[in-house]
Amino acid sequence: MSKLLIVGTVAFDAIETPFGKTDVILGGAATYIALAASQFKVNSAIVSIVGEDFPEEHLDLLKSKNVDLSALEIVKGGKTFFWKGKYHNDLNSRDTLATELNVLADFKPVVPESYKNADVVMLGNLHPSVQMSVIEQMTEKPKLIVLDTMNFWMDNALDELLNVIKHIDVITINDEEARQLTGEYSLVKAAAKIQTMGPKFVVIKKGEHGALLFKDDKVFFAPALPLEEVFDPTGAGDTFAGGFSGYLAASGNVSFENLKSAIIHGSNLASFCVERFGTERMEKLEKTEVDKRLRQFAELTQFNIELQ
Amino acid sequence: MSKLLIVGTVAFDAIETPFGKTDVILGGAATYIALAASQFKVNSAIVSIVGEDFPEEHLDLLKSKNVDLSALEIVKGGKTFFWKGKYHNDLNSRDTLATELNVLADFKPVVPESYKNADVVMLGNLHPSVQMSVIEQMTEKPKLIVLDTMNFWMDNALDELLNVIKHIDVITINDEEARQLTGEYSLVKAAAKIQTMGPKFVVIKKGEHGALLFKDDKVFFAPALPLEEVFDPTGAGDTFAGGFSGYLAASGNVSFENLKSAIIHGSNLASFCVERFGTERMEKLEKTEVDKRLRQFAELTQFNIELQ
Repeated sequence: MSKLLIVGTVAFDAIETPFGKTDVILGGAATYIALAASQFKVNSAIVSIVGEDFPEEHLDLLKSKNVDLSALEIVKGGKTFFWKGKYHNDLNSRDTLATELNVLADFKPVVPESYKNADVVMLGNLHPSVQMSVIEQMTEKPKLIVLDTMNFWMDNALDELLNVIKHIDVITINDEEARQLTGEYSLVKAAAKIQTMGPKFVVIKKGEHGALLFKDDKVFFAPALPLEEVFDPTGAGDTFAGGFSGYLAASGNVSFENLKSAIIHGSNLASFCVERFGTERMEKLEKTEVDKRLRQFAELTQFNIELQ
Repeated sequence: MSKLLIVGTVAFDAIETPFGKTDVILGGAATYIALAASQFKVNSAIVSIVGEDFPEEHLDLLKSKNVDLSALEIVKGGKTFFWKGKYHNDLNSRDTLATELNVLADFKPVVPESYKNADVVMLGNLHPSVQMSVIEQMTEKPKLIVLDTMNFWMDNALDELLNVIKHIDVITINDEEARQLTGEYSLVKAAAKIQTMGPKFVVIKKGEHGALLFKDDKVFFAPALPLEEVFDPTGAGDTFAGGFSGYLAASGNVSFENLKSAIIHGSNLASFCVERFGTERMEKLEKTEVDKRLRQFAELTQFNIELQ
């Protein structure tokens, strides 16, 4: 079976949306990525760090999804990274109420021997130097290195970010971040400019407005599924990344055509993630539900126009 | 050949975008609708009103596109409706700098005898009482009545708007307007509520984020084509409506499947409209260009996922 190496935070979140609020619950980019990737036939491992306060039940959950946690460092006496946020009424924007780095402040990722030849590396949102360190530890060139990042690193670690971007195959980034990174308002122009920085493929995430995949002059668009209710957007982008990279690792094919399918799988899984608080929906997601909604995606976008 | 009856403004516009500004140029919803619909094999007529200041060359342009102008009233000594606006840098919002109703203030639409049995009626954005008056003049029930409207009428003529909405088959409306009309944030819920108000089909326009078609529990999504440059958004929504209604009139088929095709045709034509100021691009649009871009639409959204 193919191997997917996942790097990112494993964390505690406290979330407030217009529909309610949570206590401290399981969160973190790597968590969402791993849960989404577990929908595919792939071996995956998380490289991350937590504190001694991280409960056994969360570890058990990830292990039950066949996620290798041997490279999840548990710091004795340390506290797990914590994020607290509140979403505005439209759910498209949020305020960060607290960020406690805790053990993440000194995170030195160590890739396990058995994953130094991983087929796909999924670099979740983290300091670009940490992401780069993981790439440098690979002994075999992966089929695909996917990087997710955000505007925070553009503001605070741009040089390091530009350096790691040189070494990856796919970047996933939201529309405003693509504009910030390139100074181009047009997403077509922004994607073209990012391709000159390193990545062969550029994925621009537009939240409820879907996602775009660019390679050279080719473009593919996947809508987000129109939902009756979006309950909590937390983790949607990471779930998208996990579905995208998990599907690609499992299928072993990194053609543009197959990346299109990966975008659909990622969008499909993200549509479940937002239906409940935190990881709740992803923890119990069944393959039959996933397949049913994939059919809805096909119906949503498929049309037949006769051209002369 | 099928008949398309177009009701809407024929106007003067003065437009400023981040890329430049125009003098007083040809504008108006009916103008854009007719230019877009002229891409299809359909007889169309405009019911509208202009002043004596309206130049012969604009009339000639529309006539050259085979648009019947016998119901375009020209008021002796009157002045044509004028709109002046300035777009913000992101082109998604604009300020209205001037609105001079002029002859439009006393517009009493008169449907020509030969169009009282039109196959499709396209009611462009106008006072809902004017739109209703046109419906009442039809002697045969059209296959499809399509209505475009905007938030201005929700604020200023809600009762009349709710009345005309009862008598139509398709409403085209933007996302914010759908939310305002229904009080529902979710577009899925908003569309369901609008269907209880009268229309069988609801089209929600999201500008650069595409368009959604709803009927009962069926949804179809058409993206906007990602463009390198959007030069001037003026008329994009009307061009969409013209492509949509023109295609449906020409094909004579008002099934959900065919409305999907109509949405794609409308989106395709709108993608040209925004490439130049005003009607410039639509005036000289060639069928070969249109067909080529339709293929791009198919490539943009077509994917192939194997489901077990």
